[in-house]
Amino acid sequence: MVFISNLSVGQIFGSGTVTVTASDIKAFAQQYDPQPFHMDENLAKDSLFGELVASGWHTASLTMRLLVDSDYRPAGGMIGGRADEMQWPTPTRPGDVLSCQTEILELRPSASKPKQGKVKLRTTTSNAAGKAVFILVMNGVVRRRRSHSAA
Amino acid sequence: MVFISNLSVGQIFGSGTVTVTASDIKAFAQQYDPQPFHMDENLAKDSLFGELVASGWHTASLTMRLLVDSDYRPAGGMIGGRADEMQWPTPTRPGDVLSCQTEILELRPSASKPKQGKVKLRTTTSNAAGKAVFILVMNGVVRRRRSHSAA
Repeated sequence: MVFISNLSVGQIFGSGTVTVTASDIKAFAQQYDPQPFHMDENLAKDSLFGELVASGWHTASLTMRLLVDSDYRPAGGMIGGRADEMQWPTPTRPGDVLSCQTEILELRPSASKPKQGKVKLRTTTSNAAGKAVFILVMNGVVRRRRSHSAA
Repeated sequence: MVFISNLSVGQIFGSGTVTVTASDIKAFAQQYDPQPFHMDENLAKDSLFGELVASGWHTASLTMRLLVDSDYRPAGGMIGGRADEMQWPTPTRPGDVLSCQTEILELRPSASKPKQGKVKLRTTTSNAAGKAVFILVMNGVVRRRRSHSAA
């Protein structure tokens, strides 16, 4: 578990990997994004993508899972309130093996909440070919080091 | 199905509703965001939220489903490449009934792809009390009216 005082700007956290299957793509889409190009290989041929691709929200959710399982474990949990940037430069395709890298961009104490700090992170999720499928710049909160009374 | 020529700036699309249960919240979290405050009512009491809340990616994914089922049906599907803004002003809680409203902010032809137009949308998802739980400003693509050869 890391407190804000254990973090530094420029620090980078890696992640494990997740393999995305066609059946994962379709299952997510059926529940949350039932559009033809996320549901059916043949219908996807006529789409802008030309092939079956994952919902962008599926890629985002898989990124969250990679983050939760990564070495970046802020005290109090990973809580984001506002993103400054989010993009999907390349679609996620069946068979893709994704991993992400997260860089600490900014750290500062919260003006209003002495027990909290603010952190800005850039997470880039890439496929095995190294192409970015998701880029997210998120503003989150993290607990500051335990107070002396708890030390 | 709407083509870019059927859309106008300022146009607003509503949606149906979705009711979010504690079991939905936990099921999404177990797969994509297994943090204590999304998984267990008791553990959530000690968190920044003080109660069980949905993963922000769950709220985002439910919003996508509301959009896909709404009257906003752009030709070629709803395809977003980049968000200018995304925030979660209030958490989604068990029992919340969510709906969303989408406004067309900008429309322009694509410079490089004559068959496509670009659309910028602001989607606001709210609970039954009218509090916004999710705000997204997304840049998407939409097909222009069918060419005369297809008319």
